[in-house]
Amino acid sequence: MTAVPTDSAEKPAVADAGVRSVTRVIDLLELFDAAHPTRSLKELVEGTKLPKTTVVRLVATMCARSVLTSRADGSYSLGPEMLRWVRLAGRTWAPPEEVVDIMRQLSADTGETVNLYIRQGLSRVVVAQCESTATVRSVIPLGVPYPLWAGAAGKILLLAAPELIDDVAADSPHGPEFADQLREKVEDGRERGYQLVHGERELGSSGLSFPLVDSHGTVVAALTLGGPTGRFTEDRTPHYIECTRAAAEEISAIGLPGLD
Amino acid sequence: MTAVPTDSAEKPAVADAGVRSVTRVIDLLELFDAAHPTRSLKELVEGTKLPKTTVVRLVATMCARSVLTSRADGSYSLGPEMLRWVRLAGRTWAPPEEVVDIMRQLSADTGETVNLYIRQGLSRVVVAQCESTATVRSVIPLGVPYPLWAGAAGKILLLAAPELIDDVAADSPHGPEFADQLREKVEDGRERGYQLVHGERELGSSGLSFPLVDSHGTVVAALTLGGPTGRFTEDRTPHYIECTRAAAEEISAIGLPGLD
Repeated sequence: MTAVPTDSAEKPAVADAGVRSVTRVIDLLELFDAAHPTRSLKELVEGTKLPKTTVVRLVATMCARSVLTSRADGSYSLGPEMLRWVRLAGRTWAPPEEVVDIMRQLSADTGETVNLYIRQGLSRVVVAQCESTATVRSVIPLGVPYPLWAGAAGKILLLAAPELIDDVAADSPHGPEFADQLREKVEDGRERGYQLVHGERELGSSGLSFPLVDSHGTVVAALTLGGPTGRFTEDRTPHYIECTRAAAEEISAIGLPGLD
Repeated sequence: MTAVPTDSAEKPAVADAGVRSVTRVIDLLELFDAAHPTRSLKELVEGTKLPKTTVVRLVATMCARSVLTSRADGSYSLGPEMLRWVRLAGRTWAPPEEVVDIMRQLSADTGETVNLYIRQGLSRVVVAQCESTATVRSVIPLGVPYPLWAGAAGKILLLAAPELIDDVAADSPHGPEFADQLREKVEDGRERGYQLVHGERELGSSGLSFPLVDSHGTVVAALTLGGPTGRFTEDRTPHYIECTRAAAEEISAIGLPGLD
């Protein structure tokens, strides 16, 4: 006869399984992106590194709830249930129309992509964007986390969370000893009022970032110009700085609802 | 000493917990909609009917992955992670531009809201829409499931899945004995070529629905005109029918990629 586990022995396992399932659902959804709008079961198994039976069970539940949908060729795509959330998420994170206008003007004045970044945990995420129309342009997907230890926006966002610098450094490929250097870079930006970074995360990619502050002066977001390093030349950069600084001040004066 | 459960005794419980967690995540996300873009923990507990400890654990995991985000006032909203799927979900379900043009023209010609419905399980879901500009108009959210047993579109979509009629009836407030009546209504629509329904799901709401067929003649979607019953008058309805029929034929000739 199999012994019945006591309640206290059983509950943590089930609770862990619960949290794990949430993580798995998100991992699985993250396999769908612009480059991979459809995925085969094989790709989902390989991408999640989960046993096939687990993926089959997850996918079946997600299809039953229309979060995923199965296609005639046996592959899967995002289901119509996602439409209800993405519309709401888009509205939740959309800056006021006047802010979008300023971002659009900044992109027109500089020819570069304008991104509005916020911090989420140890990551930075673009929540609003005006893409450059140049052939060679910076393309950052909305909603995808990027690390805080590299790039201009990360160091601006860390102005409001210096207590995270040790964790961010430990999370970086440079290791915990990078913390002092990172702290120094963040402080340099505070004095200068902006961060200008070339090829830190990716060779040939430059970023210029100014803080967006709420009515208490707290940094709540970063307004960032991104483009190829070849266009951030000595004669063009002062114009970029001037335009982005003016745009950041205008946006801070308007405010970003939900981020105050 | 607590007995260690055998593998075979443990696994099903964990598997069930896994599927249940997926369902809970979706239930929890469904509490966020246009009318409720933010939710307090109390509302999430009441809305999911789950123990507070379970909701706290789920919400913590979802916040850690930025699927939810906590706000300064302690409430929650959809997180920026949701933004990564905005463009993809929109693109996955967006009909070709020519089809959107036809829907827009149909809305302009009739003054009513035009919806493109597909079937998902026992539900119908709007995946594309052109909203009427009239003050009194039909407003159906994208991606939200509606039942197949009521309304014009449901009966058109059932043309391609008559084997579901018993389940749909059992699922309806009329019970299993509604199946014969529903089957008859569906068949009437097949002969007539469309469904015209007044106040079936909601008093004062009318719907006119034509099938959209793929190259094999299979019904893959329903093109539906929705509006107040007061505008579906005897003299206007023939015009509505004529316009919607023509639009449905044009769209079927173009085809709906991904639904074939």
